[in-house]
Amino acid sequence: MGNNPIFILREVNLQLGELIERIHKAIAELQKGRFILIYDDDKREGETDLVIPSEFVTPESIRTMRKEGGGLIFLMISNDVAQKLKLPFLADMFSNVDDKYPVLKELVPNDIPYDTKSSFSLYINHRETFTGITDIDRSLTMRRFAEFIKKIDTFNDGYATKMFGKEFRSPGHVPICVAAEKLLDERKGHTELVISMMEMAGLTPAASGCEIMGESGRALPKDKAKQYANDNDFVFLDGKEILKAWEKWSK
Amino acid sequence: MGNNPIFILREVNLQLGELIERIHKAIAELQKGRFILIYDDDKREGETDLVIPSEFVTPESIRTMRKEGGGLIFLMISNDVAQKLKLPFLADMFSNVDDKYPVLKELVPNDIPYDTKSSFSLYINHRETFTGITDIDRSLTMRRFAEFIKKIDTFNDGYATKMFGKEFRSPGHVPICVAAEKLLDERKGHTELVISMMEMAGLTPAASGCEIMGESGRALPKDKAKQYANDNDFVFLDGKEILKAWEKWSK
Repeated sequence: MGNNPIFILREVNLQLGELIERIHKAIAELQKGRFILIYDDDKREGETDLVIPSEFVTPESIRTMRKEGGGLIFLMISNDVAQKLKLPFLADMFSNVDDKYPVLKELVPNDIPYDTKSSFSLYINHRETFTGITDIDRSLTMRRFAEFIKKIDTFNDGYATKMFGKEFRSPGHVPICVAAEKLLDERKGHTELVISMMEMAGLTPAASGCEIMGESGRALPKDKAKQYANDNDFVFLDGKEILKAWEKWSK
Repeated sequence: MGNNPIFILREVNLQLGELIERIHKAIAELQKGRFILIYDDDKREGETDLVIPSEFVTPESIRTMRKEGGGLIFLMISNDVAQKLKLPFLADMFSNVDDKYPVLKELVPNDIPYDTKSSFSLYINHRETFTGITDIDRSLTMRRFAEFIKKIDTFNDGYATKMFGKEFRSPGHVPICVAAEKLLDERKGHTELVISMMEMAGLTPAASGCEIMGESGRALPKDKAKQYANDNDFVFLDGKEILKAWEKWSK
């Protein structure tokens, strides 16, 4: 009976139904400004990130990320937005200026164990922040960044960069990660998974995240991250699930 | 009696004696690989940092910094070491390459409220790290960095940079802050205060630190940081005290 095609099909449909429901729930959570949890893949970082749309970030959100996450607290944006701001990938920029700064030639990140490319761009602070690192300051930088992105299409090309600099400075305390141009077709990191979710949710493509650390000196294992999500009423998504949903949504 | 010069002198000597004792205690703590707490100044950041020599950093130290501190977890080095590695200040580097990257021209950090210059240099990961962000990875990057600095004088000029790149990559997750060339005569930030302490302690000039955040969205206020130091048996030093000790020591 287990191999009866009708039963197999019913099982597949049940799984697909459950997946769609969970994605819808995650989208609803993001739209309400709540955190969701995203695990990338056993074959990548194997890390679960706390993720929230940057437009909803408050000092309390930063506190949650540093207390419950403990990793890097960072911004993620779409490649499109980065291009409008002329924000480079740091790795590209370093290789373009390494004649002036030979140390960059030596430090080339050509051996990242789980990927071919780092998604790091510049680190920023909003100009109204003080030290830039407090919960109030980091949340201000993130929220204002999302508000700025919201109106980016009203600026013409060079002007977006100019207006960006009126509000923000670099170096700063909030790193920006930029999604790959072809998004999940090109790279399957947290940045791409998160920006895909933001697009499916119809939200401004600026999100904030932090990796969840465990007790053992390593990232919190996937099963414990699921348990944490359960205990705190957060939706937990696996990278594979987002990939499936994105494939259906983007076609 | 209160204005009797002999009594005033005795009071001054008592204060000086107490200061010297506390500095000696702080030095002994650093030499044992324990954290000390350093507050900069009411007129600067007004922040207290957890500080430990990088050569003693373990995964447990990173955990302490993220759990009890909550700010940025960073490395600090002497200007001398940075010069040997040809490590630039990011702000200088940005202004030297802003013809190629015009966004850097807009983001110039010319309005830092408490200082004239950012001490940020590159962000690194040790090449043996995996994601770079876990307690194990960040402690590995920091400890190996200190070990590398220990032997830096055995390399001739260009070779130090080459050997540095054999072990480390950038972009990474651990920011390096570089002390001003004239140390406390030039800038009185945490980086300079800490590197002065490391020199007085005769330790390799590579230290790790993290700002202590409070409950209110701001940095932990000074009196509460002192209380925290007291409760956890950490030595607490005020920037002004380090300045006084440094003046005596460096002359």
